[in-house]
Amino acid sequence: MSSVNMEGPAFNRLPPWVKAKLRPNAIETIQRVYDWVETECVPAEPIYKAQVAKNKWVTPPLINELRQKAKAQGLFNLFLPNHFKESPGLTNLEYSCCAEIMGRVYWAAQTMNCQAPETGNIELLAKYCNDEQKEKWLKPLMEGKMSSAYSMTEPDRASSDATTIGCEMKIGEKEVVINGRKLYGNVSYNEDMQIYILMGCSDPTNPDPWKRHTTLVVPSRAPGLTIKRHLTIMGYDWAPEGHGEYVYENVRVPVENIILGPGRAFEIAQGRLGPGRIHHCMRLIGQTERAYELALIRCIDPQLKPRGKFIGEFDSNIERIAQMRLQLDSMRLVVLNAADTMDLLGNKAGKYAIAQSKVLVPVMAAKIIDECMQMYGGQGLTQHTPLPEMWTYARFVRIADGPDSAHRHQVGRDQLKTAPAVKVRHQAYQKKHKELCEKWGVDYVAFGGTDY
Amino acid sequence: MSSVNMEGPAFNRLPPWVKAKLRPNAIETIQRVYDWVETECVPAEPIYKAQVAKNKWVTPPLINELRQKAKAQGLFNLFLPNHFKESPGLTNLEYSCCAEIMGRVYWAAQTMNCQAPETGNIELLAKYCNDEQKEKWLKPLMEGKMSSAYSMTEPDRASSDATTIGCEMKIGEKEVVINGRKLYGNVSYNEDMQIYILMGCSDPTNPDPWKRHTTLVVPSRAPGLTIKRHLTIMGYDWAPEGHGEYVYENVRVPVENIILGPGRAFEIAQGRLGPGRIHHCMRLIGQTERAYELALIRCIDPQLKPRGKFIGEFDSNIERIAQMRLQLDSMRLVVLNAADTMDLLGNKAGKYAIAQSKVLVPVMAAKIIDECMQMYGGQGLTQHTPLPEMWTYARFVRIADGPDSAHRHQVGRDQLKTAPAVKVRHQAYQKKHKELCEKWGVDYVAFGGTDY
Amino acid sequence: MSSVNMEGPAFNRLPPWVKAKLRPNAIETIQRVYDWVETECVPAEPIYKAQVAKNKWVTPPLINELRQKAKAQGLFNLFLPNHFKESPGLTNLEYSCCAEIMGRVYWAAQTMNCQAPETGNIELLAKYCNDEQKEKWLKPLMEGKMSSAYSMTEPDRASSDATTIGCEMKIGEKEVVINGRKLYGNVSYNEDMQIYILMGCSDPTNPDPWKRHTTLVVPSRAPGLTIKRHLTIMGYDWAPEGHGEYVYENVRVPVENIILGPGRAFEIAQGRLGPGRIHHCMRLIGQTERAYELALIRCIDPQLKPRGKFIGEFDSNIERIAQMRLQLDSMRLVVLNAADTMDLLGNKAGKYAIAQSKVLVPVMAAKIIDECMQMYGGQGLTQHTPLPEMWTYARFVRIADGPDSAHRHQVGRDQLKTAPAVKVRHQAYQKKHKELCEKWGVDYVAFGGTDY
Amino acid sequence: MSSVNMEGPAFNRLPPWVKAKLRPNAIETIQRVYDWVETECVPAEPIYKAQVAKNKWVTPPLINELRQKAKAQGLFNLFLPNHFKESPGLTNLEYSCCAEIMGRVYWAAQTMNCQAPETGNIELLAKYCNDEQKEKWLKPLMEGKMSSAYSMTEPDRASSDATTIGCEMKIGEKEVVINGRKLYGNVSYNEDMQIYILMGCSDPTNPDPWKRHTTLVVPSRAPGLTIKRHLTIMGYDWAPEGHGEYVYENVRVPVENIILGPGRAFEIAQGRLGPGRIHHCMRLIGQTERAYELALIRCIDPQLKPRGKFIGEFDSNIERIAQMRLQLDSMRLVVLNAADTMDLLGNKAGKYAIAQSKVLVPVMAAKIIDECMQMYGGQGLTQHTPLPEMWTYARFVRIADGPDSAHRHQVGRDQLKTAPAVKVRHQAYQKKHKELCEKWGVDYVAFGGTDY
Repeated sequence: MSSVNMEGPAFNRLPPWVKAKLRPNAIETIQRVYDWVETECVPAEPIYKAQVAKNKWVTPPLINELRQKAKAQGLFNLFLPNHFKESPGLTNLEYSCCAEIMGRVYWAAQTMNCQAPETGNIELLAKYCNDEQKEKWLKPLMEGKMSSAYSMTEPDRASSDATTIGCEMKIGEKEVVINGRKLYGNVSYNEDMQIYILMGCSDPTNPDPWKRHTTLVVPSRAPGLTIKRHLTIMGYDWAPEGHGEYVYENVRVPVENIILGPGRAFEIAQGRLGPGRIHHCMRLIGQTERAYELALIRCIDPQLKPRGKFIGEFDSNIERIAQMRLQLDSMRLVVLNAADTMDLLGNKAGKYAIAQSKVLVPVMAAKIIDECMQMYGGQGLTQHTPLPEMWTYARFVRIADGPDSAHRHQVGRDQLKTAPAVKVRHQAYQKKHKELCEKWGVDYVAFGGTDY
Repeated sequence: MSSVNMEGPAFNRLPPWVKAKLRPNAIETIQRVYDWVETECVPAEPIYKAQVAKNKWVTPPLINELRQKAKAQGLFNLFLPNHFKESPGLTNLEYSCCAEIMGRVYWAAQTMNCQAPETGNIELLAKYCNDEQKEKWLKPLMEGKMSSAYSMTEPDRASSDATTIGCEMKIGEKEVVINGRKLYGNVSYNEDMQIYILMGCSDPTNPDPWKRHTTLVVPSRAPGLTIKRHLTIMGYDWAPEGHGEYVYENVRVPVENIILGPGRAFEIAQGRLGPGRIHHCMRLIGQTERAYELALIRCIDPQLKPRGKFIGEFDSNIERIAQMRLQLDSMRLVVLNAADTMDLLGNKAGKYAIAQSKVLVPVMAAKIIDECMQMYGGQGLTQHTPLPEMWTYARFVRIADGPDSAHRHQVGRDQLKTAPAVKVRHQAYQKKHKELCEKWGVDYVAFGGTDY
Repeated sequence: MSSVNMEGPAFNRLPPWVKAKLRPNAIETIQRVYDWVETECVPAEPIYKAQVAKNKWVTPPLINELRQKAKAQGLFNLFLPNHFKESPGLTNLEYSCCAEIMGRVYWAAQTMNCQAPETGNIELLAKYCNDEQKEKWLKPLMEGKMSSAYSMTEPDRASSDATTIGCEMKIGEKEVVINGRKLYGNVSYNEDMQIYILMGCSDPTNPDPWKRHTTLVVPSRAPGLTIKRHLTIMGYDWAPEGHGEYVYENVRVPVENIILGPGRAFEIAQGRLGPGRIHHCMRLIGQTERAYELALIRCIDPQLKPRGKFIGEFDSNIERIAQMRLQLDSMRLVVLNAADTMDLLGNKAGKYAIAQSKVLVPVMAAKIIDECMQMYGGQGLTQHTPLPEMWTYARFVRIADGPDSAHRHQVGRDQLKTAPAVKVRHQAYQKKHKELCEKWGVDYVAFGGTDY
Repeated sequence: MSSVNMEGPAFNRLPPWVKAKLRPNAIETIQRVYDWVETECVPAEPIYKAQVAKNKWVTPPLINELRQKAKAQGLFNLFLPNHFKESPGLTNLEYSCCAEIMGRVYWAAQTMNCQAPETGNIELLAKYCNDEQKEKWLKPLMEGKMSSAYSMTEPDRASSDATTIGCEMKIGEKEVVINGRKLYGNVSYNEDMQIYILMGCSDPTNPDPWKRHTTLVVPSRAPGLTIKRHLTIMGYDWAPEGHGEYVYENVRVPVENIILGPGRAFEIAQGRLGPGRIHHCMRLIGQTERAYELALIRCIDPQLKPRGKFIGEFDSNIERIAQMRLQLDSMRLVVLNAADTMDLLGNKAGKYAIAQSKVLVPVMAAKIIDECMQMYGGQGLTQHTPLPEMWTYARFVRIADGPDSAHRHQVGRDQLKTAPAVKVRHQAYQKKHKELCEKWGVDYVAFGGTDY
């Protein structure tokens, strides 16, 4: 069939059930993504850093060059699941295998047009836009000719309850007038950054709080839209994309920019909670794998022999290595299962599995990377290794798309809805217990029962 | 095809990839195991307790009755994987689904002849015995006519290093003479308990430490074999099986009782590290599910409304419920993947996945059950709920078949063997980095490189 | 001054500031308590177990004998702080040092009449009873002639909100008629057990929920009071005291048995939240020290040399030992500070420090003991060591006197009351920041400020 | 006595035993430090940031101005303990109270010449230099006229084993010639940075590995000494001090620059392990208090009301607030006890208490600050709050002066030295147990004994 070695590094940590599900084409693609990252991205790491350092808010020439090349090879937009007509054809599960590999180099996804927030935005536009809108925004995004941001969080609202979003949208006949503030979303310092997909409140008095909000597209340089400040993340400027805090003062956009229709923002937001939400988690697995590799290397560093032994000869470190390995692999199982669930049951049914990734993976990834940093001693926190950036990314993912407590809250409430049925079942157990105790002459209370 | 409802409680927490792999017959069997546990086992819980209380070291009549019935229905020995000719035909993965359900009632597995240590012992005997031995020991075990124990741990040796096992076996022409002490293994207070599968040291001076030991079968009432004391586990007597500490003084068994041959004990021990080692983990998932159900019920108890609200209306508890749910489901993924790995690649290749279950699952299960106990306040530690016994079982599994540090050690050492290859790859990265830096005129050290 | 060696084992883990505060008499007493425990209690450990095994619900003769002896030596009721006229004269801090030592043997406190719940009950009676009541109940309790229980928790109410306590008390002219159920409190199987100090609801419609409840004394064998069942704690029967679940059916006691007056139960409950609540924590430190000693011994066991090294030569174990030591000592600081705070500022002001002990110490103690069990491998969970009982005690203390979440809730709410003042201070900071930015021409928003 | 309000914010979280130990002068000083930080430092926070942003490697004029003022007020060098003749007179305990307050603003310590690494260096020089050396280096450092760094860590050696330090020092008759590399230590980009206190290997073949190393002073701009690169810490440049990686190529310093004498570096290093090592921990407590205040404020933010409630009305957050409060206060107890132990018993005897701070405090502080960030949702990781810098500082302290595993290793090894004595005691227990069992006719093995 294929000449791809399924025991090679592109596949060897995949669980057997996943390997068995990959179709020949997908196997080829995964291997090509691996080769791409290894030969085009890893070697160029210092070049990327140097180009960003030189020209902070410009997409590095290296990226543009690689994007051209990747597009030519068909390694573009791989994330878009096969049920979209624009899709290159991978399932979510198959893409997860790619995404993990991309995660090994922070910017590798970008060379393949698979970076956040583009992936979520492209999927949103593919799902909810009319043809005209697609032509205008989806097409250039999929061609990698511009970039976009999803603008939902507000500086003075609780991001764990989206119904409190306040950014005012007055929808007139021809225009929508926008006033408000937004937090996060890439900055338009970078010329490529062309549109904000903005969620605002257009009908504040609607009795149904889930129908008060509208989503529309705002050109990033619309008059009245200013960047209040550039946001650092744990001190990192996140260039050349960057995050910003924005002020909208009487920003006007045509009503044609509304997506799906007024009052349907939550419908759209729900839709975006699909794959887009866990692409971060997929890549995080790959990034954490690379952190783990650094820990392994540290263990056999011949220059570092405290008390005469390799670091990896101390059994505390042997146990640390094992614990990292076991935990990281269990997180991969969580992410892959979420992707597979979306493939088999759809994004809506996959909501729980997505939340499972979102809550469990970033915390664990940050913990593992932190442990790797500690194994590097004084050098672990410096730019000697990429570990500090990796940790910061993991920490960021824990908060991006909502703090984990918000996701837990949602899961917990759904779970509690199952409680009454569980209770009915347990009451039937108790009834049976009592019946049998009577039949066999057993003292019900003495052997586990209660009578209140 | 089958009339089984795959959304019903026997299946609804299984990940889609597992559901898709279950064959029609297996689906039927899983559903039948579910029905069996719900209608025959759960209702009889107080009866079991009462019978054990009345006659501590006798297998409860209830169990014997149910075993007859289960055997008649073909719900017997389900654990034995389909590659054995004696197997009823399930894969490890399919059996895992059954085992989780069995785990809902501590003794349910026993009614189906799927309890530890029988499952591991039966597999061992099926794998390594000659026909004569099979007739003598395997047959009655598979028919549920007697029970056995695996006797390896010693009171005065480190259980994390089996090469230190010291129990002396002098192999003569006709007989083996045994002297030593053993810890754990069910007690022969119970009449059903007929044989100990004993590991001892028969060739202490063999230069290869892995060839010094022999495994053989000892009748449980052999002259010279005495029970030094009955062992409690966290205070529980574990009746009607019980664990013991044993003394062998000149115990004599015929050489025909040797399994596989002298000096081959480690070969056998390796073989036993297959499914037998994670059956506990499989059942533990089911037991923890039941603990979780109790927490859910507590959340909606109308009598418990501190500060006027249901316990489940406090968002701290909502988050606790969610966290338990998410973590428990991630542990199921780990166990199911281990079972599937054994099916697809064999027990040896599955060694890592088995260790992953062994290290991660019991700790997490104990943590979740502990949280459930805490949600029951003062009642959580009493016999008001089965939670204390559940916690104790989880804690026991953490140490059974070796402490988790021993498993981590093994995994860690295997991982470190991969370090040199990883290092070679990273050195190639560095070489490439330097080459490209030179080519593009980038300062290598300034952008992430080191020169030592 | 004194011949006591302050570097000896009775003192050597006390922080210097505590040593410096101990008065000469207290130093003598602490040393005598140490000698008492080492010479009278530790050696008799198997005797105690054997006597309880023989005659489960009778106070072992050993205890009675030792109590006579301890009383004669003035080592009795040491816990009662020096501000009570009945006190033998120690401060809470000084008693803490004694209590830790007592904790080394589970029943040692009892030989000195310093066991729970007696200590809390005696303090309650000493604080709130009239002379007649003291003569009747306090005197025999302090003389060790009977024992008592505090009965507050109910099986069907949330123990984290005591205002929901429902046990009905109808206060007539001469008698109080009691109907209800109670959970916990030692069982009257033991003859010594003479009185329940009962909290019930006498005025359910009082608009002030804190004035609805009354505390009174019920003779343990009053007609109508039955033991519904004996409660096990994690499976342990806790003999010879035991815990029970009780039913009150028209139990009648004279109104003279009311303590302090009708409706004053919460006043009393508050008072009992003094030292009584952390005596468990004090003893737990001592018990955990003993668990730690067992871990140390295990580390140098010459019979246990996995891979040819002492267990204590593996650096994972060296780190474990250190971590246990450091954490346990930090918990001692917490307990001692709580005791000292009560001495210097009174029990009410010490409420926070008491909660700090209550929340942090039992969890940490259970964690350390669990680690010690794990270091003992297969033997760690059996009766080979007292570790399982120790763990169970630590787990019990975590729930006794309220689950830790209830205590956190109280602390958290008190803390949030300080938030407005903190906010005012921070707003003043912001104002100053703005003023200075203006003065120095600095961009306020760019350097950390927000304008919403 | 003093008009200082001991219930005010400068004192109100101090445990009573500490308050009682503070002398009147110290109370005045602590209050003055508090006033200084509140009125001079907090308000100037954005100014500091702006000045650093403008002129990265120059000490901000603000700092110099405040240093003059603080020196004039006697708020200078407070850290130097009262047993030095150069000391302003505080004990370590009293200084700890000051240091916590200084910690509220990252650079406040610097305005009082109490910043790291100066405090450790000044103490080192005060302790080990001769008068000539003191005049040359100690005096200007104490006057705040220059700054210094301690240079021990090397890029290619395990920092957990200082005997592997390799930097070569050839001690000639008049000069020492230095070749090697060093990691960490402030960069001489900043003009104030004048001297490196360097530890190197001068006698590599000395049979005693603790006598091979020498400490001497190197002028920061000595020929042959170059900064290989500036080190970021978790991405922060740590300006205006900065950390560096250094290359020494035939750097020559006069032999008069040797401190204490050749081969005595470990003696000096031991001496530096006194207060210098936990000043970070002291300040970290203050910094974490400020993070905690931000969490409190967030809880009552009227703009943030997810699901209609203040964040602080959710009981999950109430519990989080409580847990942070309780843990942080327990860490303060650890630090204050370490300081007090040094005062009462000296730095050497205080080694354990110092390690206790070092291991427990930074991890806990980082954990608490991380929780505070999470409570700020999306804004928690940005410069909206100082939390990211605070977390980074806590993380840095965990690795500074050695990773915590190294400290645990040292503590664990010391503890294991006590194991034989503990074992002897326990063997005596066993002997007593057996004697008494024989006397009372109790079965020793049945009640807890072992006979091997």
